[in-house]
Amino acid sequence: MSSIITLAHGSGGIKTGELINKVIRSIISFKKVSSGVGLDDLDDSAIIPLNGEMLLALTIDSYTVKPIFFPGGDIGKLAITGTINDLAVMGALPIAIVDSIVVEEGFSIDNLRRIVQSMNEVSVKEGVAIVGGDFKVMPKGNVDEIVITTAGIGLVRKNELVLDSGAKVGDKVIVTGTIGEHGATILAMQLELEATDFNLLSDCSPITKVIREVLSIGGLHAAKDPTRGGLATALNDIAKKSQVNIVIRERDIPISRGVRAICELTGIDPLHLACEGRAVMVVDGEVAETIINKLRNIGCSDASIIGEVTEEGEGLVFLKSVVGGTRIIDPPRGEVVPRIC
Amino acid sequence: MSSIITLAHGSGGIKTGELINKVIRSIISFKKVSSGVGLDDLDDSAIIPLNGEMLLALTIDSYTVKPIFFPGGDIGKLAITGTINDLAVMGALPIAIVDSIVVEEGFSIDNLRRIVQSMNEVSVKEGVAIVGGDFKVMPKGNVDEIVITTAGIGLVRKNELVLDSGAKVGDKVIVTGTIGEHGATILAMQLELEATDFNLLSDCSPITKVIREVLSIGGLHAAKDPTRGGLATALNDIAKKSQVNIVIRERDIPISRGVRAICELTGIDPLHLACEGRAVMVVDGEVAETIINKLRNIGCSDASIIGEVTEEGEGLVFLKSVVGGTRIIDPPRGEVVPRIC
Repeated sequence: MSSIITLAHGSGGIKTGELINKVIRSIISFKKVSSGVGLDDLDDSAIIPLNGEMLLALTIDSYTVKPIFFPGGDIGKLAITGTINDLAVMGALPIAIVDSIVVEEGFSIDNLRRIVQSMNEVSVKEGVAIVGGDFKVMPKGNVDEIVITTAGIGLVRKNELVLDSGAKVGDKVIVTGTIGEHGATILAMQLELEATDFNLLSDCSPITKVIREVLSIGGLHAAKDPTRGGLATALNDIAKKSQVNIVIRERDIPISRGVRAICELTGIDPLHLACEGRAVMVVDGEVAETIINKLRNIGCSDASIIGEVTEEGEGLVFLKSVVGGTRIIDPPRGEVVPRIC
Repeated sequence: MSSIITLAHGSGGIKTGELINKVIRSIISFKKVSSGVGLDDLDDSAIIPLNGEMLLALTIDSYTVKPIFFPGGDIGKLAITGTINDLAVMGALPIAIVDSIVVEEGFSIDNLRRIVQSMNEVSVKEGVAIVGGDFKVMPKGNVDEIVITTAGIGLVRKNELVLDSGAKVGDKVIVTGTIGEHGATILAMQLELEATDFNLLSDCSPITKVIREVLSIGGLHAAKDPTRGGLATALNDIAKKSQVNIVIRERDIPISRGVRAICELTGIDPLHLACEGRAVMVVDGEVAETIINKLRNIGCSDASIIGEVTEEGEGLVFLKSVVGGTRIIDPPRGEVVPRIC
């Protein structure tokens, strides 16, 4: 391992995993509370058992997206949404959020107001209270504009807890909409392309309702919101933790024309581009069609079954290509799109 | 209000309060969960009612201290300790922490390891699990070395909840040790003085045990850890929220020779310098001496009664000077010591 941190260590891909293993997971020794889910599980939230049938979900994320305003949202909407989604994919009902805002000296108070207004909109719409926070200012040149960190709690019934490790042979893999919209939108702006010329719009939005509809049907074995590292990373996480192999079909993966265009222009794999308002779910094969119908009824018009869990295994994800042939899909090795969240 | 953020907005003093009121509290509309403690209360943690006699405490803070290593600790120890202390002063037993580390590209992996080791030491010693986290890398020049954000949860019994608003006429004001050590240590290093020449050592340490011993005696009406903005800010918060006036006596406030020396050199008021391992407590006058004896027995050799709550009022804090005369103590107006936490 090199002796300094590189951008690739922050990609959410292979290098991030290596660094977290060697410098965080191997050093921290008290990593979970009793029979809960903790640091070694690297799930979307930690789980802390309370008395009785309820579990507490707890998660944190820092948001450093650049640019801070983008088609479909801004860093404030993203911060509240991302934390809600990390709770929702555990099967939790998000309850409350605390936020910490670190801004650079000289930051515009009007822009801060716009960002806080976006945070408020999501909070009110989703019924998740913003109960406290911290606010710090760093001297000019010490932080780029603004970093927002949000931590959230939610409550999960024991029988509704959804872990990355729950995928089973015979399960179907579902995505709730087109993939890569958020990553492609940010990428276009970073390349100084007009995101709107490609009809790009971040998919940034809470997925609590979607997950809860699926929970009410039953058969939800694993779920993630495929953010940093995209669908490829989310599926690899599920496959490895569940010790199964997964096959997905390229032709069934919903990808918008704009995302395809940006990917062709840049050579980036759409499977590596972040979503911020989609879920990938591994569900009982028997209810997969029921779930797809329900999802389409509640507005997820592009929800699709994209593959299945084919066998127990070492956690490989295979892509059946449109043009024929099958290849293994890995998480990204380098920094695909910097600072997408 | 000016249209850009200045360093003074991050001081923890008057300007921070103004900004938070105008740009955060007035915009966020869903600010607490049912009968809990939320954003408008600006207490050390938010409180979320659970079923039965238990309340959940939730808090978040970002740490941007510069330098990141200092006599008595480092940014990792500070981040875990600060979050534990924000829970402890609510009367909560800290249970679990999640952390988010944002580092600059080029940051030393050895230094990251040292910082994570410090986090682990506090976690293990205090029995508070580090259950999850986030890790992001920003391009060089976009963040200064490292920012750590920690969020923590704890459980409080309803009858042990300690709010800033609980001070009553006749109560005594106690500090658990010498004040300003952390702020003075960081200040000395920022001025490129040798902190050790002044015998300065940050007081950075968890205060859970101290608070719990006092809870076991009873009569604890309000408590804070006086970090940013120092004792002056903590006492003003308590006085204003409790609608009482407080008088403290300069001669009874424990201040080390080193802190006095730095304050004389710089003209900074020691009451504005941060502690990171002390509590200020407002306790029933009848048990104040019992509490002081207990505190001295458990190693708080400088614990002192420094004043009392004299009357109902608009929340003023008066200092009886050693040389005679009484003056009003305000929170700092500008940026006293930048980036002390």
